[in-house]
Parts: sequence; C-alpha cells; structure tokens
Amino acid sequence: MKFTCEKAVLNEAISICIHAVATKSTIAVLEGLLITAEDELTLCGYNFKTGIKKTFPAEISEKGSIVLNAKIFSDIVRKLPDDIVEIVCDDHYMTTIRCGLSEFNLIGASPAEFPELPNVEKSQGIKLSCKLLRSMIDHTVFAVSDNENKPIHTGSLFEITGNQLTVVSVDGYRLAMSQEEVENGKTENLSFVVPGETLKEISRIIPDSEDKAVHIYPEKKHALFEVEDTLVTTRLLEGEFLNYRNAIPNDCTTKLEINVKSIIDCVERVSLIISERLKNPIRCCFEGNSLKISCVTSLGRAYDECTIENCPEKIEIGFNNRYLLDALRACPEEKVVLELKSSLSPCVIRPVEGTKFLYMVLPVRLKADA
Amino acid sequence: MKFTCEKAVLNEAISICIHAVATKSTIAVLEGLLITAEDELTLCGYNFKTGIKKTFPAEISEKGSIVLNAKIFSDIVRKLPDDIVEIVCDDHYMTTIRCGLSEFNLIGASPAEFPELPNVEKSQGIKLSCKLLRSMIDHTVFAVSDNENKPIHTGSLFEITGNQLTVVSVDGYRLAMSQEEVENGKTENLSFVVPGETLKEISRIIPDSEDKAVHIYPEKKHALFEVEDTLVTTRLLEGEFLNYRNAIPNDCTTKLEINVKSIIDCVERVSLIISERLKNPIRCCFEGNSLKISCVTSLGRAYDECTIENCPEKIEIGFNNRYLLDALRACPEEKVVLELKSSLSPCVIRPVEGTKFLYMVLPVRLKADA
Repeated sequence: MKFTCEKAVLNEAISICIHAVATKSTIAVLEGLLITAEDELTLCGYNFKTGIKKTFPAEISEKGSIVLNAKIFSDIVRKLPDDIVEIVCDDHYMTTIRCGLSEFNLIGASPAEFPELPNVEKSQGIKLSCKLLRSMIDHTVFAVSDNENKPIHTGSLFEITGNQLTVVSVDGYRLAMSQEEVENGKTENLSFVVPGETLKEISRIIPDSEDKAVHIYPEKKHALFEVEDTLVTTRLLEGEFLNYRNAIPNDCTTKLEINVKSIIDCVERVSLIISERLKNPIRCCFEGNSLKISCVTSLGRAYDECTIENCPEKIEIGFNNRYLLDALRACPEEKVVLELKSSLSPCVIRPVEGTKFLYMVLPVRLKADA
Repeated sequence: MKFTCEKAVLNEAISICIHAVATKSTIAVLEGLLITAEDELTLCGYNFKTGIKKTFPAEISEKGSIVLNAKIFSDIVRKLPDDIVEIVCDDHYMTTIRCGLSEFNLIGASPAEFPELPNVEKSQGIKLSCKLLRSMIDHTVFAVSDNENKPIHTGSLFEITGNQLTVVSVDGYRLAMSQEEVENGKTENLSFVVPGETLKEISRIIPDSEDKAVHIYPEKKHALFEVEDTLVTTRLLEGEFLNYRNAIPNDCTTKLEINVKSIIDCVERVSLIISERLKNPIRCCFEGNSLKISCVTSLGRAYDECTIENCPEKIEIGFNNRYLLDALRACPEEKVVLELKSSLSPCVIRPVEGTKFLYMVLPVRLKADA
C-alpha cells in the first residue's frame, strides 16, 4: 500500500473515525484504525457497537490496507507539519509515515484480523439536517438510563410516524422527548432504539450545519447514519421500550408559563448544599406569585425564590435537583409551560406552543419537616 | 459578627485565599476560611505550609470572626446574584448568608480553633513587579525535585546578591535558573529556599501586572510575600542547597545559536512514540548544518531533523525527552545559545546576551544501536 494526502484531510478523517475505536480492548486490532487504499482512501473504526467509516480522495499509487494503532497514528498525524503525508507499508505490515523531514516507522496489523462491519442496506430511510439531529440527540440523551438491568432503556427510541420523528429517552425517574418534521422516503411507520453511547458519538462527529443532511436507514438489528462520505453503523437495542404515550399524564390541574433561566438559577443555588454524599430532594413550593425552593442537608439550609405567574392553589413538591436541572437546561426555549397536579404527580414541561419537546420529572416524597 | 459587602469583591478574595486551604485534612478547621470583621474584613486560609490573608473594606456593623468551610462558602458566593451579600453569625456559630432573595444557613467553626499564622516582620526586603516574579517562578519551578529524600530540593533557591535576585531549581537531572535586577532595601546578601508548591500558588494568585509590586521579606524559618492587601506567608525549607555555581560547566567546546521553536517541534514529534510505559532517551546528533533527532521504542521508530548553525564537530548525545522539552519551552527568547562538549557532558542553554536565564540538562547514556 502506498498513498499520499494532505495532512489536514487525513487528520480530520482520523478525528472522526477514532470515536468508534475501542480505547481498551484485549484484542489489539480493535484499538486500531483500518486504512484501505482502493480508488479512494477509507478509514474505519469499529468497536462491535458502533462503526465509523470515512471515505475521501487521496493519491493512491499502490492499493492495499493496514491496521494501525489509532492512538499513536492520530498523535503522529496531528503533530506532523502541514504538508503532504506519505504512507507506505510493506508485506510485513511495516508502515512508514513521512511528512517533510519527519519519518515514523510503525508495525501495523493485518487487515484480515479487523472485524467486518454489519452490512446495512441503504434502502428507504429518513432525512434531516445535521443540526436538527444533533439538537434532538442533545435534548434527550441525558435522560437515557445507565442501569444495565433494563438494557432497552440505555438507548433512545426513534419513532417515525409519517413525516414526524420522535426521539424519547427514559430512565424510570424522568422522560425526555424531542419531536420534529423530517423527510420520510418510507411509507410505513417505524421504531427502533439506538444505544445512548452511540448517539453521543454521533452528536460529536456530525457537523453542526443546517445545510448538511443525515440519512438514517434503520434495519432490524442495525441502523446506518450517513452524512456525506461518513457512515456510522450502529447496533440497535432489542426489547420492549416503555409505552411513553401512556406514561405522560394529561390530567394536570395547574399550568404555569415560566421563565426557564430564573428557575435554573434558583435550583442551582439551592443545590449547592447537595453533594454526592449529602443527598436530599429540593422542596419546591408554588404559591401565589412565587416559587420558593429550599433544601436541607447536614451542611445547612439553602433557600431561594423567584417570581412566577400566579399559581391558584398551593402545591408543594419534591424533586431530585439533578433531574429537574437536566430537564430545565435542555429546554430549547426561554419560556415553557410547567404542568403540575399534586405533590405526588409527575411534573411535565412543554413548549408554550406546539409539541417540539416534552420533559417529565417524577416527584420525590418529602419528609414533613422543612 | 455582621457585615455586608459586594459579591464580586468577596468572591475575588475567596478565590485568592482558598489556594492556601487544605483540601483534605483530618482537622476540619483547616478546610475552612477564617473570616474576621474588624475595621476591615480579612479572609485567611492556612495549611501549615502556606498562609494567605487578604484584607479589604466592608460595611461592618458588628465585629467578630468565624471559620466557614472554604469549598461550600466559595461555591455559594460564586453562585450568588451580583448584589450586596450580608453575612451574619450568632454566638453558636450559626451563619446566615443573604443576597437578593437567596439565603443560606451554615454552621461555622470557632475562630479559636483556627491555627495562628507565623508572624514575619516586614523589615527590610526586596521589591519587584508581580509580572517579573511570576515569570521568574514559571521559568524555574518545573525543575523542582519531587523526591522527598532530599527535601531542600523540593523548593527553589532565592539568592539575593546586591540588587540581583537569582531563582534556582534543581532535581538531580537538570537545573533551571532565572536572574533579574530588583530593588533591595537590605544591604546584606541573603539566600532562602521556598517550597515549590508555595511558589506555584504564588504565581497563580498574584496579578500578571507590571505596575503592581511584590515585597518579599525573608526571615529565618518563614518568608512573607506582600502584594497590596494580600499577604502570603510561607515556611522555608532547611538544609544545604546544591552549590549551583560549581555544578554548571564552563568548559564547553561547542556553542550553537539555535531557534527554540524548531527544535521543540522536532523533539515533540520524536517524543510521540515515547510513553509513560515505553521510555527511551532521544538521540540528538549535531553534525554540520543539521540536528537529527531519533528515538526507538517497542512502538516503532521516529526520526526528525532541523537546520542549525554549522556544528564543527559531530556530537551525538542522548536526552530524556521531557527534560529537554521543559527547558526549551521555558526559554523566554526565540533564539538561545546551546552549549555542548561531549556526549557525556551536560547541555547548557543560555540567552544570546546577558545572564537572564540558564538551563542545564544532563545527558542520558545511549546504547550503541540506533
């Protein structure tokens, strides 16, 4: 194998594909990137959960392929001068990387040892902008469960109904949902669950651009996310996802339009006396024109309040501070509607108009004392 | 005790004094900040090695003092709205912090439990700008030893000769020296050794300003660094510091004016195949107009070269890559003079003109093969 290409181009491709490389594996080849020089150059990282492949043009004078340790290869290319990089490898996998006056000799591994990526047909799928997919992931992925007892909830549900994509995460204490219009090449409705880890990687590697499109092609066991010359293959989670429609209460008695930032500030301040070791719910008391938030731990007592729209009846409700903050911080709008019923009913956060997002946080039972 | 002051002013004082607070101590009071309200407000942190005290004006309506846990106090004040903060504490050390609508109640500790700072007389000392002291520390402190077997070398030597201040750090493998003119109120010559840890804190907390002055008052066991209303008291290290003048060779045969950046780039690239686990010296070969640097580890081989001023005789010398990089990165000038003698003699780096700084790195014996 022998090729040359611009350092910057190679560097960018590595920085994308390295996201799918296993960081610590007993199988050395999984810590590597597969480099394939055919008509074009392809880099590929694969950790059995996610695979990322990027294809780009290079001056290829001898076809072939090699697996190089991803970390050392990435470190080297990043530090090379901004010039043309030449990579040559011989039959014994001895690889030489040259750029300017710098030269590195590394032993690679046989491409035959590299696991094959699952093949996903690019049949009909959906299409949306990279920016939109990123925001849908970012606004829901935090609520994915980290409890492996219920593996299906360690991923986010993607549900396609006509031209509407709904992404939902739940972890037993809260729910996060994002809903947007997309282009649907398929006529049938579909649903599949993508691992949260993979979604975080996808959000990291796809450009934050409205002009670039992502195609999502779901199959039974795997799905393919395609952005221009980058392909992300992911396995899907199997099992029965929570019937989220039934889980969201629709009988709330109190709806308050609130300013997100002012409540975040209050909750953040009251949270200062809560720590990993000193946990306690925060007590939120909605009454008249004020929301009074307090908390007591062995460190002391914290109290804060902010002005709200008039709340006709007094509702006192306890929350896990982290869950309430996560939901409020994810709100993509300045003002949202908070729906409450009683101190034992979940709190629901919705947009003032439309159905773009929905957050639900379950209450925590409060002790009698303040 | 009862006082009010601007949140921003209090916050800044905390962020300075917290540097001297013990992060983990079996004595709870050492994790606290002593707040004293007299005619002015004083904050004080002390970990038995370094003490930092800052005095500033506040509206004091009731004198007194309290010790509050530094971490929680700092977290709270940082998050408060930008407003006037009121702090009140009663006879049982119950402390209330109020700002806007926020209120915190914390239990403080008795100021009587807080250890007393050593008293250092502000008799005659030296004076230099904050910017200069910071640069002198930053250019030498990296070479302080972390080996507690020779405690004196875990600090930097401050040597005052007439109007000249010399700061020197050594760790058995290298030496870093910085030399500047200062104002000396004392007539006698002086030398004392300040713990490296303290110097790092001092460099962090003093402003990077040419207009603000630091006064340094050394005594037998302690020294005082004074910047406006901030006082840093530090213990000094006892023992015999290396006679650095004798340690620096003066019989070098080869002097080369080099471009610092281009050598740093080469060394950094060659260092890519060196890791915590895979150590090996870098081989530097000075010959004619080029410096060829190479290294071999079990990862592979790295090679780089750069153009230098003509080197009349070939010198091949091995270095610990980290030590050579530290010295080159600390050079405050673009071009410096590299002094070499043989593969077994230390390499000395000096300014092209003057005696502002000096770095010395000991060679590492190379094996015969490349």
